[in-house]
Amino acid sequence: MTRQAVRGTGSPLGLHRVIEPAGALPQAAWRLDPSPELWPDETRVRVDRLNLDAASFRQLTDAAGGEPAKLRAAVLGIVAERGKMQNPVTGSGGMLTGVVAEAGPQAPLGLAPGDQVATLVSLSLTPLVITDGLARWDGRSEQVPCDGHAILFGRTIATVLPADLARPLALAVLDVCGAPALTSRVVSQAGRGGEPPVVAILGAAGKSGSLSAAAARRAGAGLVIGVVPHRAEAETLAEAGLVDQVVIADARDPAALAESVRAAGGPAQVTVVCVDVPGCEGGAVLATAQGGTVIFFSMATSFSAAALGAEGMAADVTMLIGNGYVPGHAQLALDLVRREPGVRGLFEAGVSEETRDNRPGMEEK
Amino acid sequence: MTRQAVRGTGSPLGLHRVIEPAGALPQAAWRLDPSPELWPDETRVRVDRLNLDAASFRQLTDAAGGEPAKLRAAVLGIVAERGKMQNPVTGSGGMLTGVVAEAGPQAPLGLAPGDQVATLVSLSLTPLVITDGLARWDGRSEQVPCDGHAILFGRTIATVLPADLARPLALAVLDVCGAPALTSRVVSQAGRGGEPPVVAILGAAGKSGSLSAAAARRAGAGLVIGVVPHRAEAETLAEAGLVDQVVIADARDPAALAESVRAAGGPAQVTVVCVDVPGCEGGAVLATAQGGTVIFFSMATSFSAAALGAEGMAADVTMLIGNGYVPGHAQLALDLVRREPGVRGLFEAGVSEETRDNRPGMEEK
Repeated sequence: MTRQAVRGTGSPLGLHRVIEPAGALPQAAWRLDPSPELWPDETRVRVDRLNLDAASFRQLTDAAGGEPAKLRAAVLGIVAERGKMQNPVTGSGGMLTGVVAEAGPQAPLGLAPGDQVATLVSLSLTPLVITDGLARWDGRSEQVPCDGHAILFGRTIATVLPADLARPLALAVLDVCGAPALTSRVVSQAGRGGEPPVVAILGAAGKSGSLSAAAARRAGAGLVIGVVPHRAEAETLAEAGLVDQVVIADARDPAALAESVRAAGGPAQVTVVCVDVPGCEGGAVLATAQGGTVIFFSMATSFSAAALGAEGMAADVTMLIGNGYVPGHAQLALDLVRREPGVRGLFEAGVSEETRDNRPGMEEK
Repeated sequence: MTRQAVRGTGSPLGLHRVIEPAGALPQAAWRLDPSPELWPDETRVRVDRLNLDAASFRQLTDAAGGEPAKLRAAVLGIVAERGKMQNPVTGSGGMLTGVVAEAGPQAPLGLAPGDQVATLVSLSLTPLVITDGLARWDGRSEQVPCDGHAILFGRTIATVLPADLARPLALAVLDVCGAPALTSRVVSQAGRGGEPPVVAILGAAGKSGSLSAAAARRAGAGLVIGVVPHRAEAETLAEAGLVDQVVIADARDPAALAESVRAAGGPAQVTVVCVDVPGCEGGAVLATAQGGTVIFFSMATSFSAAALGAEGMAADVTMLIGNGYVPGHAQLALDLVRREPGVRGLFEAGVSEETRDNRPGMEEK
């Protein structure tokens, strides 16, 4: 691993693609070099679809006042300037699908030209060029049809798309596959040698939320409480049968949230935050038992709000930054969708992670 | 706990002091009511000193171009507008000391008028009024002499200042006492049933860093690696004898940091981030072994940079948001200072958490 890499000794982390600032990792960099020529361990993908993460899509949509032309221009501008699709406000990206065009002679990913793949790392660190002006994107969904190319590094995780699931479904599942995997691990640990834990899922009718709810139950949760913001989602979630208790509460209202979770059987030993709106840190902490754990998956999470909020409430809770990588995460999530009709139903009905206004986020399916 | 509280049924979390937005916790609120009249479970303190947190002090100093008058005006402006000292950019605050002036009839904190106390929750949620225009503050230290009053809620943690330690020393220790307590817990867990873990402390010559290094060793670390940015701090740290290996590296340069830690005996099973500059997330993750844990104490930590960075490197590491509250944290930190001459020496020498430019941060002692 060296920053003075020359073609022939590229870094598996992609350090050789960083233009500025020097020495940064690709995710932290302002600008990457997205040129199509491969380093020996790289793989080039012809991109057919981006899946913007929910927090980024919402921010861009709000900033564009919902106008598709402005939204297209914003995304094109970011990619042209930064060499990657990383929203400068949220810091987040999303993922992509495409077809492998060329694999370098030392590429370790096991991909061959023609493979249909999805990346499992964020667009925020993936060199990207868009060549079609996003002409086919109507701006109303976070799934963005496009043409162009992307570069995968030696250590970039990508997976061949499963043959038995429709591409938009697989993409939507893979986009959030870190959440059920980490939830499963934490719930298993919480239940070790004790009572099966109470688990609260904030945003349980969304993509990462429904997968996490199913994963929590399989990992041995004693009670799964699903929190949603309004009646429509509550009915959908109840029908899906993924949780034991459905609670309607605003996750941004700490006192109300904590009281609702308590009334449903809480406080929770494990609270999973899948609501992509700011301001949910305090409520999540307050809904969690002393000695419990909060997993933050929302990219709208504020580090300082969580740290200082817990301290301010004298709350002895373990707070985890939701790492999107857990070994085996893609397989675990795809299996949940295959085996849990409730999860599949929610995904196929196009329920999005959006919980503030119930705006559907997967209209393309 | 209710938002429609009337005098007589205040919330132990201080919800009744929130002016806007309604329903927010005091830490998340934009503006608090700092009026001196007490609710039954509250305690009023006559403030004699604020201790701004390092990230906030640095940001304010940079924004003021280092001019004391501008710095004073900035702090006064924030407190007047928000009813608390919460830096709007960093979201962080600090802590305070003072003398108990009045305790409400139902105050559960066990404090009496005349007690000299320090708050152990952030200024970012503590109602505060400053009455002396900060005339005694020279603007060159994060320790701010001042006159005014602050309100403690029923659940606000505060501690009577120890009689055997000088006040500035005790204050500096209590300000960061969550770090050694959580480090101790995580290192103990990491060592359970296996090899004593390797622990890397980024910013080991600073306040939270030196305490965390001492705590890690006492909790059973097999090897403690202290990372500092330059030779002067390296010599200071080596003399203090708190770590087994001293490494000079820029924590913002991921590849260089990881290589330095590796060469010193890493990767680490536990990495503790005490460097209050942005951009350390990737390096911390890269310096940590698969299956290891990173504890982020720096308020300059970016949630999305940590989450997406770990994912982007396919790093299976547990990432903790450094909760400032762990039961017994104040006692543990004060005991470390009493018993570890190396820690006490660093604190008394005025070594600050600043690691970018070695600017001393505790000149007042």
